[in-house]
Amino acid sequence: MNVQGTPWRTIWPIPADNSVGIIDQTRLPHEFVIRNLRTLDDAAWAISTMQVRGSDLIGVAAAYGIALGLNHNPSDTTLSEGGDKLLATRPTAVNLRWAVDCMRQRIQPLPLNERTAAAFAIAAEIAQEDVTMNEAIGRAGLALIRQLAINKGPNKTIHILTHCNSGWLSSVDWGTATSSIYRAHEEGIPLHIWVNETRPRNQGASLTAWELQHHGIPHTVIVDTAGGHLMQHGKVDLVLVGSDRTTSTGDVCNKIGTYLMALSAFDNKIPFYVAFASSSIDWQARDGLVDIPIEERDTNEVTHIAGCARGGEIVRVQITPVGSPATNPGFDVTPARLVSGLITERGICDPTEKGLKGLFPDLAKTRTES
Amino acid sequence: MNVQGTPWRTIWPIPADNSVGIIDQTRLPHEFVIRNLRTLDDAAWAISTMQVRGSDLIGVAAAYGIALGLNHNPSDTTLSEGGDKLLATRPTAVNLRWAVDCMRQRIQPLPLNERTAAAFAIAAEIAQEDVTMNEAIGRAGLALIRQLAINKGPNKTIHILTHCNSGWLSSVDWGTATSSIYRAHEEGIPLHIWVNETRPRNQGASLTAWELQHHGIPHTVIVDTAGGHLMQHGKVDLVLVGSDRTTSTGDVCNKIGTYLMALSAFDNKIPFYVAFASSSIDWQARDGLVDIPIEERDTNEVTHIAGCARGGEIVRVQITPVGSPATNPGFDVTPARLVSGLITERGICDPTEKGLKGLFPDLAKTRTES
Repeated sequence: MNVQGTPWRTIWPIPADNSVGIIDQTRLPHEFVIRNLRTLDDAAWAISTMQVRGSDLIGVAAAYGIALGLNHNPSDTTLSEGGDKLLATRPTAVNLRWAVDCMRQRIQPLPLNERTAAAFAIAAEIAQEDVTMNEAIGRAGLALIRQLAINKGPNKTIHILTHCNSGWLSSVDWGTATSSIYRAHEEGIPLHIWVNETRPRNQGASLTAWELQHHGIPHTVIVDTAGGHLMQHGKVDLVLVGSDRTTSTGDVCNKIGTYLMALSAFDNKIPFYVAFASSSIDWQARDGLVDIPIEERDTNEVTHIAGCARGGEIVRVQITPVGSPATNPGFDVTPARLVSGLITERGICDPTEKGLKGLFPDLAKTRTES
Repeated sequence: MNVQGTPWRTIWPIPADNSVGIIDQTRLPHEFVIRNLRTLDDAAWAISTMQVRGSDLIGVAAAYGIALGLNHNPSDTTLSEGGDKLLATRPTAVNLRWAVDCMRQRIQPLPLNERTAAAFAIAAEIAQEDVTMNEAIGRAGLALIRQLAINKGPNKTIHILTHCNSGWLSSVDWGTATSSIYRAHEEGIPLHIWVNETRPRNQGASLTAWELQHHGIPHTVIVDTAGGHLMQHGKVDLVLVGSDRTTSTGDVCNKIGTYLMALSAFDNKIPFYVAFASSSIDWQARDGLVDIPIEERDTNEVTHIAGCARGGEIVRVQITPVGSPATNPGFDVTPARLVSGLITERGICDPTEKGLKGLFPDLAKTRTES
């Protein structure tokens, strides 16, 4: 999407010198910094330090990492040891493992002198698949926003509340939850986005707000607890979030706080939709609260926060008393009963087993039998 | 309550030189700084800069401010102009107005040479009333916690979640929501408190956590969205919050985010209690969502945050993109249907008109007829 009026992706190949460009997301929203990855180690560093983050983007960065590694050494060592190094950067990232496995399987059979070019081509393919997938999610969600706009009446602004960053910065382009927002904006539907700051890592305030600002979409940053009040007073038409993992029954595991937004939307009869690619459906999981383990993250994320000081430097400060313990569950589970619908690359369905199987009979069958 | 093992109040007279001591709450939790107020202007400054905050404490500080003013100039000018100066520091604070009016009415009839001593005595009386009121609230809430402890079984820890700071730092001593926590702790009931950080001003992380730590009560700081997840997993036995204003029908206006905690407690069948003094009941208000205006606070509270940098200095940093707007509603309204009970100085009642009138027939009568 646009940055200062120019279209960007989060990651792109630079064929002239077989390197890869990325937006350094650790510097956002305060600085727009581009970095050049030249080696597999550069890619591993970018993933582990979260210069690139978001499950889709991590996978693509790892695929390009393999290509960068093969460019220096096209031997099997790059696929084995280099691949392991990339896998170790974010051990729980499913897409990272998928991308490394895919690269290994497709490169292994090739002669050494064809590997680099093939690896760059496959990485570009994975990146393009991500874009295509998100575009399809966006088309599905656009239909929903269009209908809300028709119901509300001509020239009325549709107010959408989102949590965390399921934006283009978490993918190669478009994002999941934001994809239909960008499409609706392009279609001229007047939009305004309530951006939950999303403590503790503040991905809403630092990434979603930045994306929307640069693409020219009206938005307002709020603390994560303000949404309930706004919904009570009719200031939210739709809640639209992403999902890290969705059970076969429609329970949604997403950034901590999503459950509270769903409770509030339900209490105020506001539609609550979740946008994700089918790859994040866990067909084995039936009860999200039981079957999905919740990552306990570093408590430093709660006790400290980084921001831009008056002189322009990024400073990290402690915001709790020294010695007071903290805990930091990264995600929560929103039961399907609170969800209005699921937005996928094949359209919108009910948050039920029947709904998901109806859209994905092929995937449901394969996965449950495996 | 205790600070480093020694009992403190938030404000106290120093008869030796007719001055007043306060804890400078703007330096908490990073530094424990005591300040000496010598003039009415000192008191006005302490209130306006929030060195003292919390509706009860502000009232007491204003009463002492009048006494300090009379110590320098016992004439009516101090009561009129000095009183106005104090009133202007926090124009919407009901207790501030009440305290200044009370001082004016009781001092006015006295001869000049008796005014200073009388003013210090009346201010001390107002402070002591606050302590007595909170002790009574604590006794009422203690009965509730005792019952939870009996139900849960011997030596089982009772986990209480609280939002914002309705602690002793917001009053002269004990606090409202925390009063029963301190009492239950003194009685030896094993407690653990989940402390919501309470964005945007972070009174939970900076004040409630600090109070609990210094009084030796086990606690854990969490982001404001983690409570839902903890409740889903049976890690919360009671939600206990304060109230800035309660309608005659039991709707509760409290710090932004209280409504979401109530929704989550309700969804998970966890008791949700609200502790406050009867002075904060608005007998005219019947529908909290309609009748209680919500203060829109400075958006800088959302876009910036202050904390302790590595060198020990307090630094304020921006955490949102420059140019992204923010909005900052300070409070929300929790409908009575989500509240389990109201804890007052006269005991616990249902969150209904019948419940409140049953406990306060005298107040309900006076106020509704006025």
